[in-house]
Amino acid sequence: MAKTRSWWGWGNVEDAVVGAEREALTKRVAAILPGTDLTVHEPPSVESLELPEPRVAVPDSLAGLASTDHADRAAHAHGQAFRDVVRNLMGDVQNPPDVVVRPRNEADIVDVLDWASRANVAVIPFGGGTSVVGGVEPRIGDHGRSVGTNGDHDFAGAISLDLAALDQVLEIDRTSRAARIQAGVFGPALEDQLRGADLTLRHFPQSFEFSTLGGWLATRAGGHFATLYTHIDDLTESMRVVTPSGISESRRLPGSGAGPSPDRMFLGSEGSLGVITEAWMRLQDRPRWRATASVHFDDYGAAVAATRAIAQSGLYPTNCRLLDPAEAFLNAGAATSGGVLVLGFESADHPTRTWMERALELVADHGGTLPEPARYTESTGHQDGAAAADTWRSSFLRMPYQRDALAAQSMITETFETACTWDKFDNLKTTVTEAANEAIRSVGATGVVTCRFTHVYPDGPAPYFGIYAAGRWGSTLAQWDDIKSAVSEALSATGGTITHHHAVGRDHRPWYDRQRPDPFAHALRAAKSALDPAGILNPGVLI
Amino acid sequence: MAKTRSWWGWGNVEDAVVGAEREALTKRVAAILPGTDLTVHEPPSVESLELPEPRVAVPDSLAGLASTDHADRAAHAHGQAFRDVVRNLMGDVQNPPDVVVRPRNEADIVDVLDWASRANVAVIPFGGGTSVVGGVEPRIGDHGRSVGTNGDHDFAGAISLDLAALDQVLEIDRTSRAARIQAGVFGPALEDQLRGADLTLRHFPQSFEFSTLGGWLATRAGGHFATLYTHIDDLTESMRVVTPSGISESRRLPGSGAGPSPDRMFLGSEGSLGVITEAWMRLQDRPRWRATASVHFDDYGAAVAATRAIAQSGLYPTNCRLLDPAEAFLNAGAATSGGVLVLGFESADHPTRTWMERALELVADHGGTLPEPARYTESTGHQDGAAAADTWRSSFLRMPYQRDALAAQSMITETFETACTWDKFDNLKTTVTEAANEAIRSVGATGVVTCRFTHVYPDGPAPYFGIYAAGRWGSTLAQWDDIKSAVSEALSATGGTITHHHAVGRDHRPWYDRQRPDPFAHALRAAKSALDPAGILNPGVLI
Repeated sequence: MAKTRSWWGWGNVEDAVVGAEREALTKRVAAILPGTDLTVHEPPSVESLELPEPRVAVPDSLAGLASTDHADRAAHAHGQAFRDVVRNLMGDVQNPPDVVVRPRNEADIVDVLDWASRANVAVIPFGGGTSVVGGVEPRIGDHGRSVGTNGDHDFAGAISLDLAALDQVLEIDRTSRAARIQAGVFGPALEDQLRGADLTLRHFPQSFEFSTLGGWLATRAGGHFATLYTHIDDLTESMRVVTPSGISESRRLPGSGAGPSPDRMFLGSEGSLGVITEAWMRLQDRPRWRATASVHFDDYGAAVAATRAIAQSGLYPTNCRLLDPAEAFLNAGAATSGGVLVLGFESADHPTRTWMERALELVADHGGTLPEPARYTESTGHQDGAAAADTWRSSFLRMPYQRDALAAQSMITETFETACTWDKFDNLKTTVTEAANEAIRSVGATGVVTCRFTHVYPDGPAPYFGIYAAGRWGSTLAQWDDIKSAVSEALSATGGTITHHHAVGRDHRPWYDRQRPDPFAHALRAAKSALDPAGILNPGVLI
Repeated sequence: MAKTRSWWGWGNVEDAVVGAEREALTKRVAAILPGTDLTVHEPPSVESLELPEPRVAVPDSLAGLASTDHADRAAHAHGQAFRDVVRNLMGDVQNPPDVVVRPRNEADIVDVLDWASRANVAVIPFGGGTSVVGGVEPRIGDHGRSVGTNGDHDFAGAISLDLAALDQVLEIDRTSRAARIQAGVFGPALEDQLRGADLTLRHFPQSFEFSTLGGWLATRAGGHFATLYTHIDDLTESMRVVTPSGISESRRLPGSGAGPSPDRMFLGSEGSLGVITEAWMRLQDRPRWRATASVHFDDYGAAVAATRAIAQSGLYPTNCRLLDPAEAFLNAGAATSGGVLVLGFESADHPTRTWMERALELVADHGGTLPEPARYTESTGHQDGAAAADTWRSSFLRMPYQRDALAAQSMITETFETACTWDKFDNLKTTVTEAANEAIRSVGATGVVTCRFTHVYPDGPAPYFGIYAAGRWGSTLAQWDDIKSAVSEALSATGGTITHHHAVGRDHRPWYDRQRPDPFAHALRAAKSALDPAGILNPGVLI
């Protein structure tokens, strides 16, 4: 039976944290942050929300695609950032789209963009709505005034363009291991449609169940693979994009040197240059052999050096997630003074024992130890392997639900992520952690900051920080904004990127604007003007 | 002692094909194409060339950087395409730059671009001048009229901006394995400067000795690695580019999801958006373990299937070069009915025997056989390994010299290259080969067409075709142009890219214009207008 999407928080209503899980979670937090007021505040009902009246209506020709339903507008008013969830809990939904429009096909999208360009209506492409950076919120400002640096563009209104009807795998090329896929398909439905061909995209962001291919492409999502194919970019063979100036379709190519890559312009364009409707994606055979190990360290510096050695070894692990001691304790229940490195190799072609054994030599060289021996498994059916990995996966997938449960208990539980070169990492981690702790203190809260690597490269890691702080009910939004600002400043100052895979959206704009080279900003703005002359596409994002 | 660069052909005068090498080469060609007139036509002396007078002069403030020396202008009038070499042999040098300008630093480049923008002078960035697609030829048309589709832009003249003075490795980050390198440095000097840190870029295009980092970046050059890091793009951490609108410098990052990648806009921009001055490049440890094997096949289809299996195995060979039977016979002296797959693995971290053994299982599954067992070597010093690889390398490096020797004997000896998905390869190879043979016949020549893969991807190969045809002295340029056109049409029609790693330049424009999506062309043109408002940078290339 179909579950019900929560209007205000992560995922499905039926999967929310309740009962024994909530009790256990509350106990855990109380143990770490004693004295915290963990009263549960229930979200308002969607019916009780006061939404502004729609400012615009679509023409009759598009009426069949449009919804002004109250709950529909509320559900399209935000993404899934902590700040979105908190505002929802407060009943503070100021920027719903005037209309939710659900195109059935590309022709509908062309019609919508034509009308919106003429009618001066902002168009926010909407996939699964899991943006954690304000990327899908129609925040076009009071009275339709844009808050983007684009200047003083006034919009008549804003629509959310929900692409969920474009949900089909249209074509599978078994020989090249690729498929032509519509952009509105959600992760599970995508994998379901590939299963018959015994292929998989193997792109598993934490949002997998609730996000779409188009969203992954538009935001350069990070996925399953810790090395090599870290971003959806690397799995993209070609793209089809509807822009107000015409449809852009790149040629299916495994590689090319013919000028700057067209796909690389649309990857990460966050709906500001066009609406992605289809892509040819590179697929994988379903893995058969797996090797997994958890390596403990007494010294965090040694753990980082071991991880770097593996990242530079040419072994290319599928998983290479270094948890710092706080992260290892809080999220994996492991007490270490140097952290835990979760290592995994997988292959559809060959046993990966040799790979793992060499990696374990490298970690041993840096003082890593194995409380339990590495596990080597072989699966022959479609089921997805090792128990340990499954445990991590389900705990990983529960995290956003737990964040929301805690948000309703005045906790500030949020993440920020980056990437930097290895030479800068020690300083970045120290500076960022200090800045976060100082900011937590200065907003009158107490809390913990943790760090793990989600992906690693030969030249640097992608650190992912978690914050768990006890906030004050009614103030957690302002408290988080202060913390987020302080952390973003620190990331920026120590050489990190403002985002490795969460995208820029509206929330990361100030730091993105400083990070990107000015001439590139000019060029991107010019490109947008060429593709979207009326400037209607996701205004305020990126440009 | 320093060698002398040939004004008209490949590389150094001292290394040209002469004596016994020439005799052997001539005999080989005579054996394959009996009855061919292989009379040697000597190139004209550079002094005897009639060059048009310079149309512009630089202002006094730039005079110290400028040369209007006759030989200098002649040497900057062309790249190293077959059509360039033939025109040189004919003494047909119509498009020399008016002035060769050699900036010493970025400030000089800024000054040159400022002046050129004001004075309406085309600026052609020049690295090593090895473009095989007309990328560095100041072909701005009769009387300064542009021949690009940019329209009717009239230039007062054209300068070649020779970046050879920017030849330093400025900084090495041993921890992250990266270096900040000036764009004008040639391959050998670059490797020399990295050797002290025991690091290497390991980007070895055929032009390695005579081409520069900036040229590789501007043209998305293909290099050493058959898989994974196929293009220089993949080795690029950040870039610094002087545009007429300001200097663009991206942040050093191992990975990022912050909007469309700035570097990906300049990679492949072929001098049309800015002058690349520096880049942080990802480096490698010097390999210690190597495994090499030559696998013979009776059936070419089976050889392709074996190569595909390896490309999709996750083994990531360093070398994976499938020679078709004609290529294997002509360039590796192996008589097979199905071709030869040259396989190699290398690592600085671990012996690669397990990798090679699994690859050999895969080729055996497809009927591949080994006339000699695979070779496993370990080197401890700085010397570069296996004899077989060295042999291939030196023969590979002699090819351009031999092409020029043969060009002087009325032979049409040229290559064209592409990439396509696996499902399209059979048809592409058949269609392209037929088109090439038909074109050879229709220009009244006889010849041979060969094919090898230079790089392979999970979703497709990068086929590289060779043509060896007996032309008519004085007509080989026109003959080649007809053949090239026919082949490019066939590539385009069968789903290949017009270039996998030779770039677009001026020669590939018609097919590139068809390949790139129209909206992307609009966007790129808008980006160029923003960065280069006067339109002076390498006009006619790409845009």
